[in-house]
Amino acid sequence: MREAFHEQLDGVFDDLAGICRSVETAVRLATQALLSGDAAIAEQVISADADIDKAKEKIEDTCFQLLSLQQPVAGDLRVVVSALRMVTELERMGDLSVHVAKIARLRVPDIAVPEEVRPTLARMGEVAEDMVCRVEQIITTKDVEAAIELGRADEIMDGLRRQSFAELFADEWAHGVEAAVDIALLGRYYERIADHAVSVANRVVYVVTGDFPVDV
Amino acid sequence: MREAFHEQLDGVFDDLAGICRSVETAVRLATQALLSGDAAIAEQVISADADIDKAKEKIEDTCFQLLSLQQPVAGDLRVVVSALRMVTELERMGDLSVHVAKIARLRVPDIAVPEEVRPTLARMGEVAEDMVCRVEQIITTKDVEAAIELGRADEIMDGLRRQSFAELFADEWAHGVEAAVDIALLGRYYERIADHAVSVANRVVYVVTGDFPVDV
Repeated sequence: MREAFHEQLDGVFDDLAGICRSVETAVRLATQALLSGDAAIAEQVISADADIDKAKEKIEDTCFQLLSLQQPVAGDLRVVVSALRMVTELERMGDLSVHVAKIARLRVPDIAVPEEVRPTLARMGEVAEDMVCRVEQIITTKDVEAAIELGRADEIMDGLRRQSFAELFADEWAHGVEAAVDIALLGRYYERIADHAVSVANRVVYVVTGDFPVDV
Repeated sequence: MREAFHEQLDGVFDDLAGICRSVETAVRLATQALLSGDAAIAEQVISADADIDKAKEKIEDTCFQLLSLQQPVAGDLRVVVSALRMVTELERMGDLSVHVAKIARLRVPDIAVPEEVRPTLARMGEVAEDMVCRVEQIITTKDVEAAIELGRADEIMDGLRRQSFAELFADEWAHGVEAAVDIALLGRYYERIADHAVSVANRVVYVVTGDFPVDV
């Protein structure tokens, strides 16, 4: 009985890593659509989100089965509930990628991001994608050190967001209010993807050690 | 044993309604700080958030006790897991109120919202506060009809957000990029509060009927 439980639980974590890979693709393609103004790629991100939702439902069903049939207590119980929370956050990261793709699509055939802020937004996209990729590794390897390290990447994202505001609010800004609003919202979406990545990584720390990292 | 379980579960829902009241206060005061540029009220929202976090932890602890000691199955299990999800969303609504309060504080002694968009932002604040108030009632009375009705208030919020964009992007806009970005982000925060309110209400429908409302 306990062995079956842990096998099923390993399956849940494999599925969580799988969703993470889908989110990584969503972040990468959404950024690509954004910086190139490519409507087809934006559509691809938007339509692929249904698969992430389906994968989420599958994990939720398995977790409910585990809770219901195996009635785990103590540590095992907390691991299953953590998995339920992780999948909610990963699905939300997919939604945020869709928000990025929708801003890209809205401005086609133009590119939503004016040329001089494109490097900052490109870096945001890269950092977000890298963080999601590292979360996938952290889920797979249960590497606590790597999970704690991820908090530092989040600081880079915060710095990029401040930089984007500095660019928007500079006297030289010549792209009007609409582009500025797009960039402020895009910055918010990338920042939230990064926040959720850190949160998922912290849940892995909790699953392994029974404690959340300090200051979380 | 079952009676003790249902008593404890009732206590959890009372506590959820209590958090809802704290969130309602946070939304109301954050809007007030925003529209009046009152730093003291903004500070009050920011510092009161720690109480919401504490109340959340209390509910989570009780839910884990219920899962661990009573090992509920089927419907009872889903109610406890729903409660865990509701408290996460309510706490997030508190965080979003803090974001509103922080924009208010950042612009003191000025008022972040220029006069001509103040009515729209004031309406957003009212609609958000009203939705949180109704969620509290829905949690207390388990009123499925009222929960489904809440989705319509969310449409009003979406309409207000479109209106705020129309105001920002109008040729007459004379308040520059910084104020426009503030308003776009404020709109996003109020919209998310409304989204979470609908989601919490839908979870009540699920707790009562075993099904989510259509299109959720």
